[in-house]
Amino acid sequence: MSRIIYLNGELTASNAARIDVDDRGFLFGDGVYEAIRVIDGAFVEGPPHMERLALGMEGVELSADAASIVSELTDAAGRVLESNDLMSGDALVYMQVTRGAAPRTHQFPTGGVRPTTYVSATRFAPPSAMQERGASAITHPDLRWRRCDLKTVNLLPNVLAKQPPHAAGAAEALLVRDGVVTEGSHTNVFAVLRGVVRTHPCTNDILPGITRANVLRLARTEGLRVDERPILVAELMEADEVFITGTTTDVMPVTWIDGRPAGSGEPGPIARMLLEKYLTDISGSRSVVATIPV
Amino acid sequence: MSRIIYLNGELTASNAARIDVDDRGFLFGDGVYEAIRVIDGAFVEGPPHMERLALGMEGVELSADAASIVSELTDAAGRVLESNDLMSGDALVYMQVTRGAAPRTHQFPTGGVRPTTYVSATRFAPPSAMQERGASAITHPDLRWRRCDLKTVNLLPNVLAKQPPHAAGAAEALLVRDGVVTEGSHTNVFAVLRGVVRTHPCTNDILPGITRANVLRLARTEGLRVDERPILVAELMEADEVFITGTTTDVMPVTWIDGRPAGSGEPGPIARMLLEKYLTDISGSRSVVATIPV
Repeated sequence: MSRIIYLNGELTASNAARIDVDDRGFLFGDGVYEAIRVIDGAFVEGPPHMERLALGMEGVELSADAASIVSELTDAAGRVLESNDLMSGDALVYMQVTRGAAPRTHQFPTGGVRPTTYVSATRFAPPSAMQERGASAITHPDLRWRRCDLKTVNLLPNVLAKQPPHAAGAAEALLVRDGVVTEGSHTNVFAVLRGVVRTHPCTNDILPGITRANVLRLARTEGLRVDERPILVAELMEADEVFITGTTTDVMPVTWIDGRPAGSGEPGPIARMLLEKYLTDISGSRSVVATIPV
Repeated sequence: MSRIIYLNGELTASNAARIDVDDRGFLFGDGVYEAIRVIDGAFVEGPPHMERLALGMEGVELSADAASIVSELTDAAGRVLESNDLMSGDALVYMQVTRGAAPRTHQFPTGGVRPTTYVSATRFAPPSAMQERGASAITHPDLRWRRCDLKTVNLLPNVLAKQPPHAAGAAEALLVRDGVVTEGSHTNVFAVLRGVVRTHPCTNDILPGITRANVLRLARTEGLRVDERPILVAELMEADEVFITGTTTDVMPVTWIDGRPAGSGEPGPIARMLLEKYLTDISGSRSVVATIPV
């Protein structure tokens, strides 16, 4: 089941490609990444994803030339999609940049160590069935660091948060810090409270989700009242609707939280409307976002 | 400058050994590690290091059989030391275990994915000169997650904290959370306050350092009063002495913090005494700790 991936300038079979044992991604989780939805060979919201990647590289001081790495990875994504016959239908591109391979020291390596650049792509099946019936979620303490706005590969807290819901057959962990629902382990969290669409503001405690931003824009366009203000976990349990958003999640109604029905226990009208608008939007927006050069 | 390392059951040249691009260490920082000081081929404090590694694996649910991995890595360390001609003098062994290579999902992989096991060893130069003159440090916000008691490779916050002091020619970042000095980016922090040796208690916010425990034991043996209680950053600046401890640090007097003298500005008598006792202790303890089978 080998596939073609891109690593440090070259396309290669995934089972032949290998990361150096001294790679700072492996030793420190010292890197940033993006996952981008692709429809018929075109990025969905390519520019904001690549901008976030560049901001992440700057945020962790990973490269003095983030723009050239963004350009390299954008080009590589097209080559990987084409090599894996993923230029039609739904796909997902994964990109990662680490601070490169160097003898292990906490401080940054010197001497022009080249960042490690990695791109892979897989077929993607949109979670339509779960979107129709609604997802279950479990609240979980948010133990993460205070720079969750950076999309780094220091993801062990997310991994450990995702495992209990996964083991229980639920779709997501809703992370709670100081009584506030910050976000999910790999999604942003929304609630509809007395008709207002609420979600955590973009602070250091959440990832500025690209789907989150799109959903807020669509909600405003539809004339909904929107409030970027923290949701108390107590409010979550009383919300009319709860939903989560993300690149691989789109808009996902949450109908069950901690073993109790959320909202009506069925996908709510606002979540369903926003999902529909979102899916239309990403289909229609393809031609205006970064079409990958091939 | 290739060296011999151990990876997944085999000794190999480091420049030939490669990590799978799907390794969860690389993609999530999903692993734990230890660094162990070695003198003349014997671990310094082998059992507590290997016990901490086992506890870390259990803490992140990395393996159902931590004991066999500990046994594997202990054996591998001996082989790596011997292969690199490090059986005499000072050396440092690095061990890392990750949750293995599997298609990327946050939740744990299923189907008996084998953990990745990695061991390397290098010559080690004890930091004697800096111990004699004292080290500089810089305070830095402690942005890390709330399970700093686990020695995981999610080390990006430590990397980012270490870089500013390193760039400024200082030795360590002293991490401050809510006005309290928790620990350093890769050391534990002690202060002598009105004759009492103080250090942060072992909570989820610090690593339970093995050198830390040894130094506390030696301090008690010497009749010093010891208090495991958080040090306020304000207290740090008024302390009689400040020092840091760690596997590659031993006991290191800190004589300069944020551009101001710490304590007298010279290595203090308690730090110097504890360093001397510690160095005697680890030399003498070699024969009673885990001698590596070769």
